[in-house]
Amino acid sequence: MNRFEANLRIPGPTSIPDAVREAGAHQMVNHRGPEFAVLQNSIIARLKTFYRTENDVLIVTAAGTGGLESAIVSFLSPGDRVLAVTIGAFGDRFAKIATVYGADVTKLAFEWGKAAEPARVREALQAGGPWKAVLMTQNETSTAVTNPIHELAKVVKDVAPDALIVVDAISGLGAVPFETDDWKLDVVVSGSQKAWMVAPGLSFVSVSPRAWEAAAVAKMPKFYFDLAAHKTSAEAGQTPWTPAVAVMFQLDVALDLMEQEGLEDICKRHAAVGAAVRAGLTSLGFKLLADPAYASNTVTGAWIPEDLDWKTFNGKLRKLGLIVAGGQGALKGKIFRIGHLGHVTVPDILNAMAVLEQALIELGRPVTPGVAVQAAQVAALKSLGLAK
Amino acid sequence: MNRFEANLRIPGPTSIPDAVREAGAHQMVNHRGPEFAVLQNSIIARLKTFYRTENDVLIVTAAGTGGLESAIVSFLSPGDRVLAVTIGAFGDRFAKIATVYGADVTKLAFEWGKAAEPARVREALQAGGPWKAVLMTQNETSTAVTNPIHELAKVVKDVAPDALIVVDAISGLGAVPFETDDWKLDVVVSGSQKAWMVAPGLSFVSVSPRAWEAAAVAKMPKFYFDLAAHKTSAEAGQTPWTPAVAVMFQLDVALDLMEQEGLEDICKRHAAVGAAVRAGLTSLGFKLLADPAYASNTVTGAWIPEDLDWKTFNGKLRKLGLIVAGGQGALKGKIFRIGHLGHVTVPDILNAMAVLEQALIELGRPVTPGVAVQAAQVAALKSLGLAK
Repeated sequence: MNRFEANLRIPGPTSIPDAVREAGAHQMVNHRGPEFAVLQNSIIARLKTFYRTENDVLIVTAAGTGGLESAIVSFLSPGDRVLAVTIGAFGDRFAKIATVYGADVTKLAFEWGKAAEPARVREALQAGGPWKAVLMTQNETSTAVTNPIHELAKVVKDVAPDALIVVDAISGLGAVPFETDDWKLDVVVSGSQKAWMVAPGLSFVSVSPRAWEAAAVAKMPKFYFDLAAHKTSAEAGQTPWTPAVAVMFQLDVALDLMEQEGLEDICKRHAAVGAAVRAGLTSLGFKLLADPAYASNTVTGAWIPEDLDWKTFNGKLRKLGLIVAGGQGALKGKIFRIGHLGHVTVPDILNAMAVLEQALIELGRPVTPGVAVQAAQVAALKSLGLAK
Repeated sequence: MNRFEANLRIPGPTSIPDAVREAGAHQMVNHRGPEFAVLQNSIIARLKTFYRTENDVLIVTAAGTGGLESAIVSFLSPGDRVLAVTIGAFGDRFAKIATVYGADVTKLAFEWGKAAEPARVREALQAGGPWKAVLMTQNETSTAVTNPIHELAKVVKDVAPDALIVVDAISGLGAVPFETDDWKLDVVVSGSQKAWMVAPGLSFVSVSPRAWEAAAVAKMPKFYFDLAAHKTSAEAGQTPWTPAVAVMFQLDVALDLMEQEGLEDICKRHAAVGAAVRAGLTSLGFKLLADPAYASNTVTGAWIPEDLDWKTFNGKLRKLGLIVAGGQGALKGKIFRIGHLGHVTVPDILNAMAVLEQALIELGRPVTPGVAVQAAQVAALKSLGLAK
């Protein structure tokens, strides 16, 4: 079997719908010409609707990590006090970027698998400061936990109202409920290869008027990731550096598909596939990493049992056409992760569960045939209000 | 007419061959999986043959400007003395990046349209130092001039042998003769949307062992553009951040096409199209910007005559299906540029000349019908040794 056509169940790059894929084969255009301006303006307008914001949204040609770097260097100065709330590898990365560029970073780390607790964030904010920014992760891909961003943001607004709220929403935005403006989030980063269902290469960053004020006096060195330069160019229908044009053509089509489905239904679908994955894995005896109260609807992590040889197991999954992700950072070799965001349906998850069942049975483990497929389907239908 | 299918004659993004375009529609793969490692390893091995190097070549997901930033921040420390040899907007940009990150930059600027003079580079090197690095542009896209990099590098080796030679070869590498190792170039940057005939989104950077020694002690802040992190990941068949996978699938096919044609024939083709454009434009009365001795074979710039309304003229070109580029920086509104690199043939240039002729005739200017088409064809055949 061609593994390139497998059931790609990693938390990004995500599988791409055919119509979107095909747009990646578009011929090039002049990125300083009028057609490009129309394309970018249309994309930005629609990104804003999914961001639920009136703020500027800028397109940066880079992986999500580049978007995170732009969210640091564009608004901060060396020495600025920053509280980095981290619940996993990507929260740690966000903190590290700020540290590398000279911010005075206080890291508030929570146990991996847990969400950030608003009360402890409050304590940390009260214990230090004055805070220039608070960094948070909406959906921590390494631990499959979704933070209560609204609650956390309220605490920041209460205790440190002058601090910029800077959110890594790379692996959740466009898939789970998120309110940039209502939650008063200043800078929100996302990435093309996640919920947006297109190839990697673009990062999106929303910027509030308050954040632009900070940008005007920000002193961290920056060039490629200078969002103010991106804003100036975007106002002229351009980008400061040559953009990943083919990925933008894909995004144009993907946003059409997302608009057709509607944000509310997209979120319902992700809730259903999330519930399906968790129920299916649990029915097979896997222990989930995430605190159930904050389990992500875009990615699920499960502990690898001590008596299961991961390489053998994963080799069987691959052979049967299922590609999952391993652990990251401190969890490398300890967990595996199933991505379920973007172009994913409940039947895609049943496919994955069927493969997991068969691989376990092939390894001689006691599995009731059909148990995971059924559990997943029941959970999905319950999530959709179609079963009790 | 669909302008997306026009004769795209800008110096990048360049027109993409069909087989390459279609590879941009590839389904996603796990960028931490074995298929990706095979893909990246194969791409890197072939990039090295076109770079003419045994040095490491790393793939960065960014526009060429991001590659330039990686070439500065990965190897230098604030306060390092850097000689920035500039002959146009991109040389200025390279100098600016080094300045932004705190290098002690001495700018040696030459008149736009001229190449850098080795004797003046020698004087500048002798007048200052000790030099940590010398920045140069192989092919200055803004002025359509190709620098004598070999001569310039010899001067650096002679006067400042410890200085790293860092070359922006974004718009020339893979199209004109270039010898990374023979010319002893430490860091060489290129970009996917130029001679490589693929979509924008990837930059390539070669790094010498000497440059890696510098990297080990380099203190400029960096995260996304840290080439040492890219090297560590590449050795494991990965990239540090999610790569622009679809563009890599395109590059895989484009490198096949480039290998089939062969570097020598690719360079001959670019010499022929370069000669054709210069002869055609000259026959129409346009004055070229570049010193003829150093005219680029990948892009040509011509002054806009004072009695020619550029907007009207360019509107006609667009209507007739030809997309050219305007001027950059100080040359904005003063010149136009025709790109001729990557997927370009002599007939493509004759197409462009036919459109230029017709547009001028439509504007009532005195043009002998067929003059530019013939001049271009004759020049191309002469360049190929098929006419006298």
